[in-house]
This record gives sequence, structure tokens and C-alpha cells, in this order.
Amino acid sequence: MRLGTVRHAAGTTAAVFQGDVWRALPAPDLSAFLATAPPDRAADPDGQVLHDAVPVLPLPAPGKVICCGLNYADHIRETGRELPEFPTLFAKYADTLTGPHDDVVLPSGLQLDWEAELAVVVGATLRGADRATALAGIAGYTVANDISVRDWQYRTLQWFQGKAWDASCPVGPVVVTADEFDPAAGAAVICRVNGEETQRDSTKTLVFDAAELLAYVSAFTVLRPGDLVLTGTPGGVGAARQPQRFLADGDLVETEIPGIGTLRNTVRFAG
Amino acid sequence: MRLGTVRHAAGTTAAVFQGDVWRALPAPDLSAFLATAPPDRAADPDGQVLHDAVPVLPLPAPGKVICCGLNYADHIRETGRELPEFPTLFAKYADTLTGPHDDVVLPSGLQLDWEAELAVVVGATLRGADRATALAGIAGYTVANDISVRDWQYRTLQWFQGKAWDASCPVGPVVVTADEFDPAAGAAVICRVNGEETQRDSTKTLVFDAAELLAYVSAFTVLRPGDLVLTGTPGGVGAARQPQRFLADGDLVETEIPGIGTLRNTVRFAG
Repeated sequence: MRLGTVRHAAGTTAAVFQGDVWRALPAPDLSAFLATAPPDRAADPDGQVLHDAVPVLPLPAPGKVICCGLNYADHIRETGRELPEFPTLFAKYADTLTGPHDDVVLPSGLQLDWEAELAVVVGATLRGADRATALAGIAGYTVANDISVRDWQYRTLQWFQGKAWDASCPVGPVVVTADEFDPAAGAAVICRVNGEETQRDSTKTLVFDAAELLAYVSAFTVLRPGDLVLTGTPGGVGAARQPQRFLADGDLVETEIPGIGTLRNTVRFAG
Repeated sequence: MRLGTVRHAAGTTAAVFQGDVWRALPAPDLSAFLATAPPDRAADPDGQVLHDAVPVLPLPAPGKVICCGLNYADHIRETGRELPEFPTLFAKYADTLTGPHDDVVLPSGLQLDWEAELAVVVGATLRGADRATALAGIAGYTVANDISVRDWQYRTLQWFQGKAWDASCPVGPVVVTADEFDPAAGAAVICRVNGEETQRDSTKTLVFDAAELLAYVSAFTVLRPGDLVLTGTPGGVGAARQPQRFLADGDLVETEIPGIGTLRNTVRFAG
């Protein structure tokens, strides 16, 4: 199934894409739907068919957005590091997220960089979960771009302040449920800037896969339905290039995972 | 004023301490009260006097808990670093917090360390705030102990996974409003382990003070009423000792800021 949050003539709603139409689910958005119902509850909707539906940020209110850095072997090598024993983790907020087709509006003068990522959507409450429990607790997968403010990221030892700018991280366009998408089988993660491909790798080269990340995190903090775990970005980021390349006003960033969809976001400098 | 969340015979409520009694405020907890009313709305309560009230975690539901590391000059020196140009920031969750007198229950075998801290309670919505706006947007101050899992903190470059263990960070016992408590005037921040003083410094030696931290954070992410910003810990942590010292099962950790109050938490190893 393809789940999402859609905007239509009468408002915004959680919805499921069936056949070739969106059908409303009984919740104002997918965060609210997952908080009250297992994802498979969406399989047999009796809600309205929405012919004018446009996908927006599918998960507007995750309690936790946890990101893994340095999780593709080639990206780890481009930053000059060795393969890790433990996942490198940092946090974002629901406020950090933005929609799949929204402009990313940030102050001019920042060193903005792209980071195409597979994001895991939690579908169960996970505490101290083993790998099998974590795998069974995955609702589905979506696409994210962990657009990073490199100058702030490296102002101090902790990356957080370069990773948590409001409305900087596009997510969507849909959540594909785990029965229809298996990143272990190898899905491409692709970034294009103004049409030029800047990143491409396969999720089968992840050092820590989705279930492993959820199990690891659940050892120290509970994960709940609708929480997001971003799995890290492949090689090819702008900061690692010679010379370095950062995003400019008007740049179009496209982030694609075939089988899920494509984010299309234009960078806009404000002020 | 002294504000808090208290447990009493009939349940839990936001409350204000007046004279020598707690009086109920019209919200189930202080997070909910601050979300709907400015703190000075508490000055003239008409709620019930609660003779059996016991303070619990004052802010059970902050949307953001942002922590500053390396903010006291002597603690910076004990970690071998120079005075910073920018605050080092990382995130916790509402789930990370626990009450002022609760046991801190964590798995055995972890390297648990104390970090007594002054915490700032946000009282307004702050976006891109200058210093004066940030200062006016402080609701008050409380006490926190950023109990840290050092082995996980240093597994990778990012501290987050050692700083976000559920129910590891006691906060309280009350929030003292900004009109009655001024950390710039110099408040002692004290930690004792089993009665032995392990940390003591003055908030007037903070490199980045409360208003500066709120203004800095609000440049990249919005702060809302009830959010918490922890201002960092003084020198004297266990990991920096020769030999290193970590908390053991049964250790009593007391965290005191005169003018606010004292946290008393016993460490319990589970499993």
C-alpha cells in the first residue's frame, strides 16, 4: 500500500492510494492515523475518493526523528573514516520536516548541502526490541533529504545545530508499506541537483539496515508509531567534493527512490 | 513564583506554591498550563489548596529539550578544550526526563555519570529572537541532572545516544519564575553523590548565558512555551576524574541550586 497525507478541496486528510485514486482514511493526517491504527487497517478504506488530492508531508507530527550518519560504505570513505562498529545517531524535530514539493526556504549565506536518504516509518511501540521485533514493527518506508547546514554542523563537535533547521528536510511523497518494499533487496537512492545526478547508491550497501537501526535505538529510547528513522546518505555530498559545492538560490533538488517516489524541492534564500 | 506539577490525593495538576501551600492551576500539568497561558497568569489562582501535594516532574511534555555542552570555563578545561566561539548543542526528549525524587533505573553495566545543570524554561514562542526578546521569553528556571551514559556517548562522534536514555534526566522540583531568580547574578550549581560534593560552580561563569542560548537556538528552530534548554554542567564529572568514577547501584545523586531546590534521585540497575 501507498499511504500519505493529502491536501484536497475540502482540507487535509490521511489517505491510501488504491488503483489510481487516493481514498480518505479516518484521520487528519498519517501521523494521527498511525497513532491509532496499525498500517494494515488502511487496506480496506470506506472513505471518500479524492480526485483532486495532492500529497503533502506524510508525517507532520512524529514524536521522534532520529538520523543515522555515515551508513553507506562509500560515503564513510569520502569523509575519511573507517567502517563503524556502532551507528552514529543525531536528532531532528517534526519542525525540521517539510513537504515533498515545498520550497526549502533558508537564510542566504548558509552552506546548504544535499543528503538523499531512505527513511523508515515506525509502525509499533518498540522498547528494547530485538531485530525480529524491530523488523515486524516497521510500518513502511519513505524518501527524505537531510538537507544540512554544513557551516553550522561543523561549528562545534555536535552536528545537531546544522541538522535541525525548521522546514529544511523534505519527506514523502508517500509511505510504502513494508510488505511492498524491501530495502534489503536493494533500492536505489538518488539525488539530482538541477537535473545533474549527484548521488546514487543501493540500500543493500547500508552498514546498519532498517531493522538493526530500530533495534539499536529502542535500547535507549522508546519508538512509537509514526516516528521516523533516517538511514543515512550515500557518497556524493557537496561538502566532500573538490572543490566543495553548496546549494544556491533557485537550485532544484530531486530525491528519488524508485518504488517510493520523488521529492522535488527548490531552494530559496530568504533575507 | 514557584510553579510545578504536583501529585495529590485526587490526581495530578499544575500548581503554584503560595505562602506555604500549593494551589491548583487550571491544567493537568505545567507543560499544559504554559502552552495556554503566560506564566504570570498563575499569580492569582482561584484553584483548590492542595495540602497533600508532592512535586513531580514539572514539565512532562516539552516539545524540545535542547542541551548545551561545555559551557562552564573549568569544565571545558577539564575536557582539554579551549573556550568556544559557539555553543555545543544536542537534543533530548520528553521521554528522557524523570521526576525530582524518582529512582533513575537503567541497565547495569553502563558508565553512568552526573551532570548538574541549570535548566531554562521557555515562556514564549521564539523565532529568530534577539537577546532582549529571548530574555523576555524566559518563563523561569529549574534544576536538571543530565545523567549521561558515557560509554554510549563516546561510541561515535555524536553524543546523542548517551544523552537520550528514557527517564534518565531528573528535572524539578519546581520552576522559579524569571522575576524571582536571575542566574546572571550567580547561583550555585551543586552535585552531591552519597553526600559527597562532586560539583559546584556559579551560573555567572556560564560562557553562553540563558538569553544567549535561547536566541542562538531560535535562529534555526522555533522554541515554544514549556520547552527546556539545559545550560551545561560545571567541572567535576566522574569521567574526567583520575581514576574515572561512575555511578553504582544504590548511589544517591543530589542536585541543588539554592533558590530553586534539590533533586534527590537514587540510581537503580535493572537487569
